[in-house]
Amino acid sequence: MTVEAVALARESAGPSSHARRWTPEVVQGGEPAEPFTLGPGYLDQALLPVDLMREAYSRALTEYGAAALGYGLDNGALDLRAALAQRASTVDGIPCAPEQVLVTAGTTQALNLVCTALAARGDPVLVDTHSYDLGRQIITDAGLPTRAVPGDSEGMDPAALERAITSHRGRVGFLYLNPTFHNPTGIVVPRRRREELLRVAARHGVLVVEDDAYAELSLDGGSAPPSLAALAGYHGVIRLGSFAKTLAPGLRLGWLQTNAELAEKLVTRGAFVSGGCLNHTTSLAVTTLLRDGGYDRHLRWLRTQLAARRDALADVLRARLPEEIDFALPGGGFFLWLRSAARVAEDDLVAAASRAGVGVAPGARFGAHEQARIRLAYSFTSPRRLADAAELLAAAWCQTLRG
Amino acid sequence: MTVEAVALARESAGPSSHARRWTPEVVQGGEPAEPFTLGPGYLDQALLPVDLMREAYSRALTEYGAAALGYGLDNGALDLRAALAQRASTVDGIPCAPEQVLVTAGTTQALNLVCTALAARGDPVLVDTHSYDLGRQIITDAGLPTRAVPGDSEGMDPAALERAITSHRGRVGFLYLNPTFHNPTGIVVPRRRREELLRVAARHGVLVVEDDAYAELSLDGGSAPPSLAALAGYHGVIRLGSFAKTLAPGLRLGWLQTNAELAEKLVTRGAFVSGGCLNHTTSLAVTTLLRDGGYDRHLRWLRTQLAARRDALADVLRARLPEEIDFALPGGGFFLWLRSAARVAEDDLVAAASRAGVGVAPGARFGAHEQARIRLAYSFTSPRRLADAAELLAAAWCQTLRG
Repeated sequence: MTVEAVALARESAGPSSHARRWTPEVVQGGEPAEPFTLGPGYLDQALLPVDLMREAYSRALTEYGAAALGYGLDNGALDLRAALAQRASTVDGIPCAPEQVLVTAGTTQALNLVCTALAARGDPVLVDTHSYDLGRQIITDAGLPTRAVPGDSEGMDPAALERAITSHRGRVGFLYLNPTFHNPTGIVVPRRRREELLRVAARHGVLVVEDDAYAELSLDGGSAPPSLAALAGYHGVIRLGSFAKTLAPGLRLGWLQTNAELAEKLVTRGAFVSGGCLNHTTSLAVTTLLRDGGYDRHLRWLRTQLAARRDALADVLRARLPEEIDFALPGGGFFLWLRSAARVAEDDLVAAASRAGVGVAPGARFGAHEQARIRLAYSFTSPRRLADAAELLAAAWCQTLRG
Repeated sequence: MTVEAVALARESAGPSSHARRWTPEVVQGGEPAEPFTLGPGYLDQALLPVDLMREAYSRALTEYGAAALGYGLDNGALDLRAALAQRASTVDGIPCAPEQVLVTAGTTQALNLVCTALAARGDPVLVDTHSYDLGRQIITDAGLPTRAVPGDSEGMDPAALERAITSHRGRVGFLYLNPTFHNPTGIVVPRRRREELLRVAARHGVLVVEDDAYAELSLDGGSAPPSLAALAGYHGVIRLGSFAKTLAPGLRLGWLQTNAELAEKLVTRGAFVSGGCLNHTTSLAVTTLLRDGGYDRHLRWLRTQLAARRDALADVLRARLPEEIDFALPGGGFFLWLRSAARVAEDDLVAAASRAGVGVAPGARFGAHEQARIRLAYSFTSPRRLADAAELLAAAWCQTLRG
């Protein structure tokens, strides 16, 4: 761990006697190469609710007793599925029943399940031109090649989707979308576009997988359109949810929502019947937070924290970036997506940022493009340090472009 | 839930004000069909360490702080991998390093990983004549057909294994074994047989998957032979471990051990890099128990409890069963495996047991055979009730055979 990173850890964690915080042998990406870490989509440790989760585990074990440690109900405890179904029904205005929910070991496991249970090896999976790199890896690890479908500022182009499906003669594994606070672009697909994409998919009988990990992270108080799953009445769509971005990734807790028939089919897989709920004890800890309002209180606080971070980064970049580098302010999620109109190699921008002490994610990680793209995560760094990082980035890139 | 089951729950749980214990909407198999549940391989709720785990989660969150909630190190926190490697080294007398360990979301996820990462769809997986039914389902769910290889009282027959591999022209996904306190037969494969099986597998380059979920549950103080993995110097073998049988299945925490090269290859899969350690927070809770001796203390206590249950069941069965029904006393694990020498249909034995109020597992769940087989789990029921169940079973089956 660099001296800077250690200092950052101390600053964010506040006064503490815990010696083992955020050590490289415990967490992923423990030792960042640069002092400012705007690369990975991690939550800052100052945003992780340690006391809340300690209390939640304690309550779950007290309240559910040994039932919190047994083999969980195959599809997940009814209390949690009912709470998740209720939330979706309320937010989207379209009914969702507990039978439509499966509790999963995060989006990772859910996506892997869909890949192995519902697609045939070799079937192409259609994705946005830029899409979540590790989601794509899970898909290709399952033997399904990805095919990018172009889009615009409102998301994937329905006509291009239709052409892509037709060109594969309908033999498509599924369509993978991330329509709300998209990773990496930040785009929210408008309702009308959602409906168009759903119509194309339905016409060709192509399953839609909606990765909605950022859905609850609107940062401006606005609400996103109903989920693709809800708009489709939960037919032909599997929506993936996660507590990794709203509570803590270490919980490895997520869920999926679809129609009851498909949920029932998926839960007969060996992965569920052999041990039941895929993350049972933790799922009951989170259940207590959903029930008593602790989750919603945390979510409201987290949104204000993330909004302050987004604004701290965006304000300085707006003022200081060379005019050839632009971005749209995202309404939620973790990321700013920078687009360069200059003739500059993406690698040169990344290298210049790194020399300035700022780790960033090269756009090439998320898909192919002609002009440079950079993803900046504002989720892992304090507002003050984000402003500093933005100054450093802007200065470095001015030099790259003008120098 | 039946009146009997509710009474059982109250009896086992001791005095408690917790209303939600072991309700059907929370746990798998919540509502048994019979008052006496000797079918599933569950741990009795009285054996699940609620207070120990509450304390463990609290300590992990205090000690590791936010690092317990972040994305875990891809292969699992070093503290846990080091502890697991050290245990294996000590027990087997053959060195195992932390780099050889991957923390998994239970055996289920580990087995699924092996099936999808290391075998090609359609490759047959070789299994014992009788083997863990849900393990087999995970394998077949991954598109790998299972092929039974016959054996004897010492486990799989090496010559039969050689013939099976040859008959598939070497195109074998892997060999799936459960050599220590086998589910369902209770067999411990002796060291010499282990070495013979390993030689055959190595000669043909067939990967061995060693499901060792019951390895730490020796009930007579004796020690099993070294694991297949250790005997092979961790080459060509993947050993699956689990805390589901020794602590609690709801934790969904397990691990695998193999050589460092293969462990490194597996950890590059999307499932690990997308979120890191597959059950991070829980893995650190268990880490604290391994470190402070709490796990070993619990294990010693659990072994005495399981031994008392095994003996309560076996003693009455020995005295009362019709002579045509026999079993060998298992040295560990959860199960008695009954073999009938009579001309009686297995279904008739199961039905007679059910009418007498005792749920049992028909042998056909675990493989094919000519004469009836029944698996009885002594893990889920108190000694007193196991003795009662044994009386009921013996009386019912005497009537079935003599009536």
